Amino acid sequence: MRISDLSRHTGIPIATIKFYLREGLLPPGTRTGRNQARYGEQHRRRLLLIRAFTTVGQLDLMSVRTLLAAVDDDTSTLATVHDILHDVLFPVGQPPVRSENLDRAWGDIDEFIKELGWQVKPAAPACARLAVVLATLRDLGCACTIDFFKPYAEAAKRIATMELDLVPSGQGGDGAAVMARSILLAVAFAAMRMLAEEHLIALRLAGQA
Amino acid sequence: MRISDLSRHTGIPIATIKFYLREGLLPPGTRTGRNQARYGEQHRRRLLLIRAFTTVGQLDLMSVRTLLAAVDDDTSTLATVHDILHDVLFPVGQPPVRSENLDRAWGDIDEFIKELGWQVKPAAPACARLAVVLATLRDLGCACTIDFFKPYAEAAKRIATMELDLVPSGQGGDGAAVMARSILLAVAFAAMRMLAEEHLIALRLAGQA
Repeated sequence: MRISDLSRHTGIPIATIKFYLREGLLPPGTRTGRNQARYGEQHRRRLLLIRAFTTVGQLDLMSVRTLLAAVDDDTSTLATVHDILHDVLFPVGQPPVRSENLDRAWGDIDEFIKELGWQVKPAAPACARLAVVLATLRDLGCACTIDFFKPYAEAAKRIATMELDLVPSGQGGDGAAVMARSILLAVAFAAMRMLAEEHLIALRLAGQA
Repeated sequence: MRISDLSRHTGIPIATIKFYLREGLLPPGTRTGRNQARYGEQHRRRLLLIRAFTTVGQLDLMSVRTLLAAVDDDTSTLATVHDILHDVLFPVGQPPVRSENLDRAWGDIDEFIKELGWQVKPAAPACARLAVVLATLRDLGCACTIDFFKPYAEAAKRIATMELDLVPSGQGGDGAAVMARSILLAVAFAAMRMLAEEHLIALRLAGQA
């Protein structure tokens, strides 16, 4: 198909597709003339993947580039794909300034993960982010104990189990599918939570809760 | 305290604090000299709030400005604060190109919400995002039915209930606390999910799952 067909099928403007081609995120098509090229099904799928990362997942171009590099790497396994996603979704950035609340939160999170028996790297960026969240909640005056997060851990584990069951056991090959699903389903959960809140607030206002 | 104290207490660089002052996100301090001003506890709290939105919540400046305007609006209620958060977290953007999968997904989501009995606006941006997620999963070849999202809805409702219980009933006044918590706890869930996945992948690799 031509670039205009590709645009029509994916809803991505031609100018944006040309940008992805220039940036090397989309492989070139087969040249058929001085200013013409043909594109195939793999181009369409690649664009859907990019759209999942950008429009739906709201990731920036640098993150998309990192994820696509992992997708294109034949040696990627489920574990390496997950590690790369982890780093993209929870960039370390500037280390937060140490404070009493942050030190305490770090201790709480460490203990919490130990109690859960979860096998995660102790310095996982998502652990660091959890510690910052807990410390910030306390900084802002929320009397929040680490126990508050127990139902979070249960729900997260349940959902992660379902999501991993979508990936055939022993397979790590299709990094694109794993990444796209992980990002799309994270958005799905966030959207569902927002809708649940809207519903509960409506009930409250109606005096039913 | 001086701007340097404010910086030390919050971990936000002086240049960034000056930027927030110039942009009107942080109210000016009390002038004590030609180039000096004093800041108080409300400035420290405001900066913690901005940091919760930016560093922890990864929101852009435009979103932060929108959220702070709602925080500063005395007429804000729990419901209006939630609506503004909803719009910031799920910006509508360019409407997606219609396709068979998208139309089907919209129908599925409508029915799903009706079955749940949730009182949400039918055109809620989070509903639109859910439809796009479902359509994209199918576009990418995932044989995903809407039933896959049932445990998502249950988990989301449970978590939303806990979060709303942190807000005293009948109160909608403290928009800052409601917003900060909502954003921080969304990050907490996303981090927990990432850690749960890491654990489950480790188990799989060890042949224990």
